[in-house]
Amino acid sequence: MSSETLALAKELISRPSVTPEDEGCQQVIGERLAALGFELETMVFEDTTNLWARRGQGRKVFCFAGHTDVVPPGDVNDWQFPPFEPTIHDGYLYGRGAADMKGSLAAMVTATEAFIEKHPNVDADIAFLITSDEEGPFINGTKRVIETLQARNEPIEWCIVGEPSSTDKLGDVVKNGRRGSLTGDLTVQGIQGHVAYPHLADNPVHKIAPALSDLVNEQWDEGNASFPPTTFQVSNINAGTGAGNVIPGRIDTQFNFRFSTEVTAEELKQRTEAILDKHNLKYSLTWKLNGPPFLTDSGGLIEAVTHAIQDECGFETELSTGGGTSDGRFIAPTGTQVVELGPVNATIHKVNERVKADDLDKLSALYLRCMENLLC
Amino acid sequence: MSSETLALAKELISRPSVTPEDEGCQQVIGERLAALGFELETMVFEDTTNLWARRGQGRKVFCFAGHTDVVPPGDVNDWQFPPFEPTIHDGYLYGRGAADMKGSLAAMVTATEAFIEKHPNVDADIAFLITSDEEGPFINGTKRVIETLQARNEPIEWCIVGEPSSTDKLGDVVKNGRRGSLTGDLTVQGIQGHVAYPHLADNPVHKIAPALSDLVNEQWDEGNASFPPTTFQVSNINAGTGAGNVIPGRIDTQFNFRFSTEVTAEELKQRTEAILDKHNLKYSLTWKLNGPPFLTDSGGLIEAVTHAIQDECGFETELSTGGGTSDGRFIAPTGTQVVELGPVNATIHKVNERVKADDLDKLSALYLRCMENLLC
Repeated sequence: MSSETLALAKELISRPSVTPEDEGCQQVIGERLAALGFELETMVFEDTTNLWARRGQGRKVFCFAGHTDVVPPGDVNDWQFPPFEPTIHDGYLYGRGAADMKGSLAAMVTATEAFIEKHPNVDADIAFLITSDEEGPFINGTKRVIETLQARNEPIEWCIVGEPSSTDKLGDVVKNGRRGSLTGDLTVQGIQGHVAYPHLADNPVHKIAPALSDLVNEQWDEGNASFPPTTFQVSNINAGTGAGNVIPGRIDTQFNFRFSTEVTAEELKQRTEAILDKHNLKYSLTWKLNGPPFLTDSGGLIEAVTHAIQDECGFETELSTGGGTSDGRFIAPTGTQVVELGPVNATIHKVNERVKADDLDKLSALYLRCMENLLC
Repeated sequence: MSSETLALAKELISRPSVTPEDEGCQQVIGERLAALGFELETMVFEDTTNLWARRGQGRKVFCFAGHTDVVPPGDVNDWQFPPFEPTIHDGYLYGRGAADMKGSLAAMVTATEAFIEKHPNVDADIAFLITSDEEGPFINGTKRVIETLQARNEPIEWCIVGEPSSTDKLGDVVKNGRRGSLTGDLTVQGIQGHVAYPHLADNPVHKIAPALSDLVNEQWDEGNASFPPTTFQVSNINAGTGAGNVIPGRIDTQFNFRFSTEVTAEELKQRTEAILDKHNLKYSLTWKLNGPPFLTDSGGLIEAVTHAIQDECGFETELSTGGGTSDGRFIAPTGTQVVELGPVNATIHKVNERVKADDLDKLSALYLRCMENLLC
């Protein structure tokens, strides 16, 4: 196969850029963009390298956003092919990052090259926001680039994030928003003691049990047309010394909300604390808002993307707000229209991560059509 | 001080017999008993040395039971005096095992010496059952000695266990039974998954929460004149990978019942499982019966002991079944009348373990009076 998109994807996959490493991927991309008239700005925040590339000044900005970092491969012996040696097999491109999201990055670059060749004088600025900190702590990546752009009043009007949004076939699902994510770290205090003398102790497991039962049974909201109902999940719970005859002195619980636009983080905090208070628990609770919910339910971008999929793929795509978080949460709150569109996500974060080799050219054509629908 | 009991206690404390070590303590005791006409039988089971000493044959057996092993001292720098260098200070004998229970062992020996000097032709056999495995796994100690005696049809009629039963002053409490102890190890199965996709997972923490709430609120019984109500305590509960975005695949819980004679271990198992079944949990549950409840609420021994305390101490003792387990649980089920009587337990298993030096002679006199009340 001689696809330019595939060749670029392989070049990127061959660089073992496990978070927060970039391993020169941004330089490869930057050189291609510079040749098209982009101005490059490398923004280094602590351990993270980010690329902000912009073609033009003063007009509305259309932006491709993505990340060069990948999750660790785990035991490479579990892989059919070495994870950082991109391999074509049975029509699939194998390698860590093939689907999440070096294939998308390659398609963005070749789509932009084709677009500028056809429309050199487009009446819009075009930008790339590339980070190497999407799979990790996401502190020094997109979040800080957006803060920097905001500080100098450089807004993004439309943004396509290259996250692998598709479920069964390319384009069947695009993400036009994401649920919010709120994490709570709860410690309920008791009094340690010997199980033979429970009257001298106060078992925090016993204190938390009915409260936890209430939290689990609570209906937080019913969702809406764009969002499923808000969910509450305990991820970790631990108490005890390991000894069978000791009543624990505390219990530590971590839980996470994925929440819709029908409820705010503040409301979830208050309602959680009200339930804990009702059970007279002695507790400490720290909250971390990983991101508020966001939604792009109208505007030019969503129309451009859905029509592009109809034209290129021949079916109607599904707009979804399901799934995990993405860097869209840092971009959308600034007023940007954000849509996530990328390849099939079935193998991401797993061994033998792969993408249909043909899909990369199709994705490039899709991105090109999106740009034309939106900007021409 | 020239007390013989104190001298013997110091001799025993100076031997660092941390479980399952005996460090020759049983030999010291055995030599004293052999001089009184006891026949000695050392029973070694795996890592544990036990002494069965009996004076006479064919008559009803009165037995002193105890253990030469002690719990570890912890950091010896935390001790006011070295834990294995018995030290008299301010009227107290300091040292690991002073209260639990080398002081009692010394008092048993000197009481028996005094008794046999006064009543050489007593119409009863006298025995000592001494183990070095009471503080540890209690598998190869009293349990196996009793099994051996049972197998050769050698019953014990009456038994005084030297556990430190007293709370504020010597003799204020004797234990005439103990609650049963039953431990459950429960694993509730779920399906692991990502917190963003709870519909693909099944959170076992959420499944167990309402069941745990029911277990905690259950009234297992109301106790009776001799026993407090049965208690249920969770000692350990653990679920989660540590990651905040993963729904755990299982939750492991360990709990313990301390139960009265109003309920059987079998009933507790059935009632627990009924509650789990009601909540449709997918679980595995393994039980360990640490010991059934036992009670000596009538008979010659309890009368002999309570009268001895009335006479020697000048107050009425309290009969109690509270507190932790003891080796009495292995002896009582064979039909033996069992009472636990020993020094004040305030410092046992702690640093600076100590006992009033005077109390050892008093305890020896108490044991002597018990034997006379019972056997003469």
